[in-house]
Amino acid sequence: MSEQDRERAEFRAVAERGKAAAAELAPLPRAAKDAALHAVADALLARSAEIVAANDKDVARARDSGTSEYMIDRLSLSEERIAAIAAAVRQVATLPDPVGESVRGNVLPNGLELRQVRVPLGVVGIIYEGRPNVTVDAAALCLKSGNVAMLRGSSSAFDSNTALVGAMQDALRGTAVPRDAVQLVPGTSRESVKHLMTARGLVDVLIPRGGASLIQSVVRNSTVPVIETGVGNCAVYVDAAADVDMAVDILVNAKTQRPSVCNAAETFLVHADIAEAFLPRALAALRDKGVTVHGDERVRAYGDDVVAATDDDYHAEYLSLDIAARVVDSLDEAVAHIRTYGSGHTEAIVTSSQPAAKRFVALVDSAAVMVNASTRFTDGEEFGFGAEIGISTQKLHARGPMGLPELTSTKYVVTGEGHVRG
Amino acid sequence: MSEQDRERAEFRAVAERGKAAAAELAPLPRAAKDAALHAVADALLARSAEIVAANDKDVARARDSGTSEYMIDRLSLSEERIAAIAAAVRQVATLPDPVGESVRGNVLPNGLELRQVRVPLGVVGIIYEGRPNVTVDAAALCLKSGNVAMLRGSSSAFDSNTALVGAMQDALRGTAVPRDAVQLVPGTSRESVKHLMTARGLVDVLIPRGGASLIQSVVRNSTVPVIETGVGNCAVYVDAAADVDMAVDILVNAKTQRPSVCNAAETFLVHADIAEAFLPRALAALRDKGVTVHGDERVRAYGDDVVAATDDDYHAEYLSLDIAARVVDSLDEAVAHIRTYGSGHTEAIVTSSQPAAKRFVALVDSAAVMVNASTRFTDGEEFGFGAEIGISTQKLHARGPMGLPELTSTKYVVTGEGHVRG
Repeated sequence: MSEQDRERAEFRAVAERGKAAAAELAPLPRAAKDAALHAVADALLARSAEIVAANDKDVARARDSGTSEYMIDRLSLSEERIAAIAAAVRQVATLPDPVGESVRGNVLPNGLELRQVRVPLGVVGIIYEGRPNVTVDAAALCLKSGNVAMLRGSSSAFDSNTALVGAMQDALRGTAVPRDAVQLVPGTSRESVKHLMTARGLVDVLIPRGGASLIQSVVRNSTVPVIETGVGNCAVYVDAAADVDMAVDILVNAKTQRPSVCNAAETFLVHADIAEAFLPRALAALRDKGVTVHGDERVRAYGDDVVAATDDDYHAEYLSLDIAARVVDSLDEAVAHIRTYGSGHTEAIVTSSQPAAKRFVALVDSAAVMVNASTRFTDGEEFGFGAEIGISTQKLHARGPMGLPELTSTKYVVTGEGHVRG
Repeated sequence: MSEQDRERAEFRAVAERGKAAAAELAPLPRAAKDAALHAVADALLARSAEIVAANDKDVARARDSGTSEYMIDRLSLSEERIAAIAAAVRQVATLPDPVGESVRGNVLPNGLELRQVRVPLGVVGIIYEGRPNVTVDAAALCLKSGNVAMLRGSSSAFDSNTALVGAMQDALRGTAVPRDAVQLVPGTSRESVKHLMTARGLVDVLIPRGGASLIQSVVRNSTVPVIETGVGNCAVYVDAAADVDMAVDILVNAKTQRPSVCNAAETFLVHADIAEAFLPRALAALRDKGVTVHGDERVRAYGDDVVAATDDDYHAEYLSLDIAARVVDSLDEAVAHIRTYGSGHTEAIVTSSQPAAKRFVALVDSAAVMVNASTRFTDGEEFGFGAEIGISTQKLHARGPMGLPELTSTKYVVTGEGHVRG
């Protein structure tokens, strides 16, 4: 058997065990799942020295290959970080169980009782980069929602992920949740990702988490249904009727409070009627925070340090202290800009005009639309979901921050007394 | 330009007009959409002679190529059938508009107002076979839910579909709904389907309606998100605690009331403890209706005319007066059979035992589970949805009969007073 065939066979064996585990896990009550989550948290704490030692190998390999200190920091685990990860698992245990919730229910005219109830999706594949904490977070959210997690992390974190999944699986042995409810996709080759992406019938849904190129690759090559997440080219539109102080605060917060995340602003658009009042103050405030503005000519008229914007700037998800800017002559021109360049994640309007707010909300086709609030609020924790598996930028199944209910499907249960169709 | 390039360019032009129309259509209020639906119904009636003439060409071509009379009947339009199609459009106008419905709403601890509201999906591609009435049904449901319909019917119905879409587009000219809200994919080649399946960014979702091979082809080749519909290998399980009269009635209804549809039963499973009481009567009742039973040895012991079942029989979606049958020793064995062979559409249990019903409902992983009712009830009309675009057998986005709400996505609208993240 070639190495490739061996890896494929190994993948199928793991996926089939995962599918079998999904059938066992789905009907478990909340108490059984919560007990398993606490067992997982206990095991992570008890075995943190071993996990840190495995992580040290990943870190050493990363250093040898010249990885940046920023990426090394993201990769690194310490006993303290593992304690935080374990605490997050216990937090998931406190959240309500979405499984079994009735989302619709009525008695039909013929007396049939119709109920639509939440059920787990089954086997959820997660393909992700970088940080090993995602391994545990994703597993915990899947477990709580009755789903088996098939995890495919970055090869740079392979030793860490193997140790984390090993600890979780061992912890599950003593619980009602099957050990195979948490699985690591075998191998670190590109082929192993392909096996996961084409495991239609064994894997119910794939959620890629990471950069744009990872997500696009999964979307294009997967035959398993995918929930597209994360790419955020978010815009702040400062309307003619904006409060200038508020607009400056929101823009600076949206750009600089945490520039590396998907809900940070990457573009701002200013109505021409307020440009004179807004731009000098906004450019000064951004300059103070070290932001480089890439503007059109009308923006550049207000600041010598504004760099000329290209079309690429308006398309860019910088994830850095850069922002693209343009003056527009109307709200509709702002909406048209967003339709052309936006990623459908989050857009904000700053305005005191109710009709302007209403029109912006109606016309902007994004997962979240903010009125007089920072784009940074598009987040499962901020929305009160208690946890988040990612932010969907597609329209099918889930859109915006995804909490536990978004990790479920539904089933119709119809109860009769011998009903037949006439 | 080659014929193929020309067709691709033509497709893109149509799809781009569709995308632009989606932006216009999305914010329209219910009254505007309902008025457009009535205009469409009026036009279908006014132009029915012209539509029938176009249909005659399709029918003549079908006859020349030796199509069966059954298929010819499905293809044929008459003034009477067009009147029924127009009436169905007016029926869609009476249904509530799902767009704008708040599905979640609360005030966050920081005072932000969070609302999740239904919005159209955008551009919905429908790939379907046979009957030209689907052209109008699908367009009406898309229009009502604020979506642009990109229709790709069977090449055998091309003249009919062209006439129907032409009449609908002309009718829309006099309304607030853009003419391009209803579009026919240009061309009849296999390539033209590919253009639709790979129009990611222009088309938001694809819904294939038709036979298993069409659906599988779309699922495997599409880069646009797909909602898988329709394949139904439905089972009736007769539990040890079943009422025999009820079980016979339900089985006969599920198999014979309309054998050609996806919610007809294709398999029945009988608990060994009730086989003696149930099978002689069930086999006689099925025999009376002209049904051929394909059974395992234990079923064959009760009837000389029972054909030996193969594994293929248990996998089959017959859509004919055939049914596969097996005696099982437990409810769990029935569930295991369904997991192995079922298509996840609809399964029924007949039982007087509450624990048995509860266990079957919990363990069977299908879009609909019937307790003491025929599988034939899995249907948008029967469920009270007023209309149905198809029956989803996937877990993502929609599962089971899909009505108007299933043709929507959602958008989060967050309203603050200058809120920034700390």
